[in-house]
Parts: sequence; structure tokens; C-alpha cells
Amino acid sequence: MNLSELIYAVDLLGTLVFAISGTLAAGDKKLDLFGAFVLAFITAVGGGTIRDVLIGKTPVGWMTDLNYLAMIAAGVLSSFFLKVYILKLRRTFFLFDTIGIGLFTILGVQKALGAGLSPVIAIAMGTVSAVFGGVLRDVLSNDIPLIFRKEIYATACAMGGLIFVVLSHYVPENIPICMGVTIVFIIAVRFLSVTKKWSLPIIK
Amino acid sequence: MNLSELIYAVDLLGTLVFAISGTLAAGDKKLDLFGAFVLAFITAVGGGTIRDVLIGKTPVGWMTDLNYLAMIAAGVLSSFFLKVYILKLRRTFFLFDTIGIGLFTILGVQKALGAGLSPVIAIAMGTVSAVFGGVLRDVLSNDIPLIFRKEIYATACAMGGLIFVVLSHYVPENIPICMGVTIVFIIAVRFLSVTKKWSLPIIK
Amino acid sequence: MNLSELIYAVDLLGTLVFAISGTLAAGDKKLDLFGAFVLAFITAVGGGTIRDVLIGKTPVGWMTDLNYLAMIAAGVLSSFFLKVYILKLRRTFFLFDTIGIGLFTILGVQKALGAGLSPVIAIAMGTVSAVFGGVLRDVLSNDIPLIFRKEIYATACAMGGLIFVVLSHYVPENIPICMGVTIVFIIAVRFLSVTKKWSLPIIK
Repeated sequence: MNLSELIYAVDLLGTLVFAISGTLAAGDKKLDLFGAFVLAFITAVGGGTIRDVLIGKTPVGWMTDLNYLAMIAAGVLSSFFLKVYILKLRRTFFLFDTIGIGLFTILGVQKALGAGLSPVIAIAMGTVSAVFGGVLRDVLSNDIPLIFRKEIYATACAMGGLIFVVLSHYVPENIPICMGVTIVFIIAVRFLSVTKKWSLPIIK
Repeated sequence: MNLSELIYAVDLLGTLVFAISGTLAAGDKKLDLFGAFVLAFITAVGGGTIRDVLIGKTPVGWMTDLNYLAMIAAGVLSSFFLKVYILKLRRTFFLFDTIGIGLFTILGVQKALGAGLSPVIAIAMGTVSAVFGGVLRDVLSNDIPLIFRKEIYATACAMGGLIFVVLSHYVPENIPICMGVTIVFIIAVRFLSVTKKWSLPIIK
Repeated sequence: MNLSELIYAVDLLGTLVFAISGTLAAGDKKLDLFGAFVLAFITAVGGGTIRDVLIGKTPVGWMTDLNYLAMIAAGVLSSFFLKVYILKLRRTFFLFDTIGIGLFTILGVQKALGAGLSPVIAIAMGTVSAVFGGVLRDVLSNDIPLIFRKEIYATACAMGGLIFVVLSHYVPENIPICMGVTIVFIIAVRFLSVTKKWSLPIIK
């Protein structure tokens, strides 16, 4: 398995985990199976879709590769039929989810840089890729987006994006190392922020 | 009146009916006349707009054909001035609305296939065209989208889209028949689901 | 300072004022500093972004000119650290905000006409540019959009857009005069509507 295959595999895994997260949110709101599928779909691909539309790269990725749709369907059905087991795995999901946002951040940064955008905007696009699926999930569930209120979540993505931009500028010949450092950083910040209850100052 | 004229006429009629539906929703929320117009507008063209933006077909349709805007204005003003009569016609609207989503589904499928997308994504785009105007209407009205919670509504569109894709693959020389069968199917499913109180399982 | 420099300066000033408006809304909802930044960002550039995506002009403006991002950061930080002083300036902000929507309306009309769209759609795009940042701010804050319920706000933009389209058609050699008349008109309508408590009829 080479680097691009590894990225693709973790991208699909991230899609699966985000789809499960969307289905669990749908359960809290008593949606039906179709509503759950739509919510899972939007949670999983919403961030990347907004990024691609803003950059002007349409049709967007999931429209030309059905594997994403397959992962989302798998996420919804497994949440529906195996809910008891999935809830026991919450700790594992937290890890997958954090790996997922780390990888989505890096993919978003790379796509934006590849489109000729500046590093600052690339970091913003990385963060959008990672967190806006969750924002859309919360808006459609009639909640104020979670990331606006709790945890160092999107902030970890933005910091990770910055680290990746700097590293890949100085070590362009070894992108896997840059990616590894970035993901470990994002995971570390998020674990520490949860265990130490770090949070940003509240606007009053 | 040939086929494309018929499609265009029913497309405009669907736009009118959706605009009325948006205005009625605005009345429930005590919006002013401008708010009602915006809500009617988004209900009527929101689904097709999201579809066109995702496919990359911009400027989107209603921006280059003012008849859509005229139908929406007509829908808002007639709801405003003739509300008593319109409420008596609710049963008729249910029929128009169902014909509308049937036709919007077919139009969305055709546009997506025409853009070279796969049949599965074309069905998704057909469903988005038919139901996402209503989703945006509900989000802007601060409600959880109705289609996530009630009736076999979007599911009827998705099934109808599948039927249309299969039929038009095997009978490409007779698209009007494919369209007729699809619309009758969607109407039948929706009528039955309302009268028999069919619903999808709820996610818990 | 020539005309295009003047427009650019007021565009940046409008961005700053809208960012402050978004941060103040974030404070009412007890968001954290990151959430406030995102809300300020969306309030400031959301309307122009929707306009550019619909027209098909991507990547959108703020992605290729970092001055917009700088103004938003300045707006968030000044609201955060100087809140006491900013609240005292509410009357001044009302003026800036009204100048801002006036200019955003004109910019939106010009961009749409430049893309070959019809005058009616250009007026709609001008209004979208001016008010949809605020609509997105309210949706993300879990409120029904303010402009749907109160004041002659978006209506003033739409009327101003109409005036600008007519004037610039008959006096194309003197655009600064057309702009000045339009902005004075929008300011006058909005001031009068607030002081006289004008409002549109409510849909019931």
C-alpha cells in the first residue's frame, strides 16, 4: 500500500466514522431511516463539498466515486442494526473521529494549495473540510453548531493545518512525515483538551 | 404542445405550487411580505439550485429565465390576497405538489445523467432537486426538516428516480412513457403512504 | 483616491462592521472565541460568497485577497477586547452598517450585470450580497432570520438596487453619481423606517 492508497483508505474510514456520528445524532432527534441517511450523508461529505464548491472544483468528489456513498450506507445500516455494540465502541470512535478530522484537514489544505490558493486560505479550507460537515449536521438538527461552543476541536484543525503548511514547505520531499506529525499533533491536542478540559474564552 | 414544452409548463406549475407552500409556511411563522417572498423563492428553486451548484452548472437556471421569478411572485401574491380560497384547495395542492416533486425528480435525474454522472448519483440529484427546497424552507423557519421525520416523501422520489433510470435505459426511444410511469408511481406511493399511514422505521 | 480605491476601502470597512455585528451576535449566544470568529466571518462574507457561487465566479473573492480576512480578524478582536467602547458606538455602527449594505448592494448589482445577467436578477444578486451574510448568521445562531421579520432592511436594498440599475442605464458615464444617489436613498429609507417604525404587512 503506497501513500495515496493509504490516504484514500483513511479518507473512506473517516467517511464511515462521520456517517455513524450523523446517524447517532439522527437517533437523538427521532428521525426516520431516510432522514438518518441524509443527515449521515451531509455529516460525512458536507465539509468537503463546501470546500470544493468554494474552490470551484465541481462536480464534487463523492459524485464521481461511489465508494463514498457505499461507506455512508454502511455507516447508517451498521448504526441502525448494531447500535448496542457501536455505543460500546464510543472510545474507539473518538479516536477514529480525531484521525478523520486530522486527515480531512490535511486533504483540504493540499487541495487548496493545489488550486493555487494562499497558505492562510488553505488552512481555512482544511478546517472547513474537517468541521463543516458537523456544522451542517447541527444546523439541520436545529442545534447551535457544537464546534462553536465546546472543546478545542476546530482550533486543533486550524493549528494542525498551520503545522502542515509549514512542514510541507520546508520538507516537500517527505510529505508522509509531514502528515504523520500533523495528525499526531491534532490527536494530542484534542485528547489533552478533553482530559484537561481546555476551552477557549467565551464571548460575553 | 410537444414534450419539452409540456415539461417546461409543469416545471413552472411546480414552481408556482412550491412558492405557495413556502408562503403558507411563512404565514405560520408571522414573517413579513419580503420574508415570505424569500422563503417562497428558496422553497421553489432551492433544490434545483443546490443540484446545479454541485454539478457545476452555473449561473443556475432561474437566473437566466425570468419566468421562474414571475411564477414565484404570482404564488406569493395569490397566497397573500386569496388565502381563504387557497386553503380550501389544499387537496388540489397536494396533487400539484406531488406532480411537482415527481417532475422535479425526473428533471434532476436527466440533468445529472446529461452531465455524465453515474445512475446512482443521478437518482440522488433527482431527489435533491425535489426535496431540498423544502429542507431549506424548514431550516430557515427554524424547524427540523419535515422530510426527515414524516411520510414516505423523499423515499418516493428516490424510488421513482430509480424506476426512471431503469426505464429510460431500456426504452430510450420513448421518454414520455418513462416519465408518465415514474410520475404515476410517485403519486401512487405518496397517496398510499398518506392514506395507509405508511412510515419508515424511526432511528432510536 | 480614485473611484475603485474608494469602493475597495468602503468594501473593507463594510466587512469590518459586519464582522463586529457577527461577534456581538456570538456574544449573545455564549459562543467561544473560535465560534465567534466563524460567525463573524460568515456574517461578513456569506452574502458575497453565495452570490459568487450562484454566478459561477469561483474561487470567491475573499479566497484570493487576504485583506478581507484581516478585517474580519480585526473586527473579532476589537469586539472582544474593546466591547465596552463598541457598545457605546452602536449609533455609529448603524450608520456604517447601512453604508455597508448600500455598497454591497451596488457591488452585487455590478458583478451580476458584468456576468451578463438581466437587471432583475442583478437586483436580486445585489440584495443577496447585502443581506444573506446576516441570514446565515441567524440560521447558525438558531434564530429565524431577522430580515424576514423586522424593518424595511432587505426591501431598502432591493429598491436601491432598482434605482442603481435604472440610473446606471441612463447615466453610464457617471457611475459615482449613480452610486452616491443609491447609497443616500438606502440610508434615507432605512433611517426613516427605523424612526417612523415603518414595516411591511405581516403574512398571517
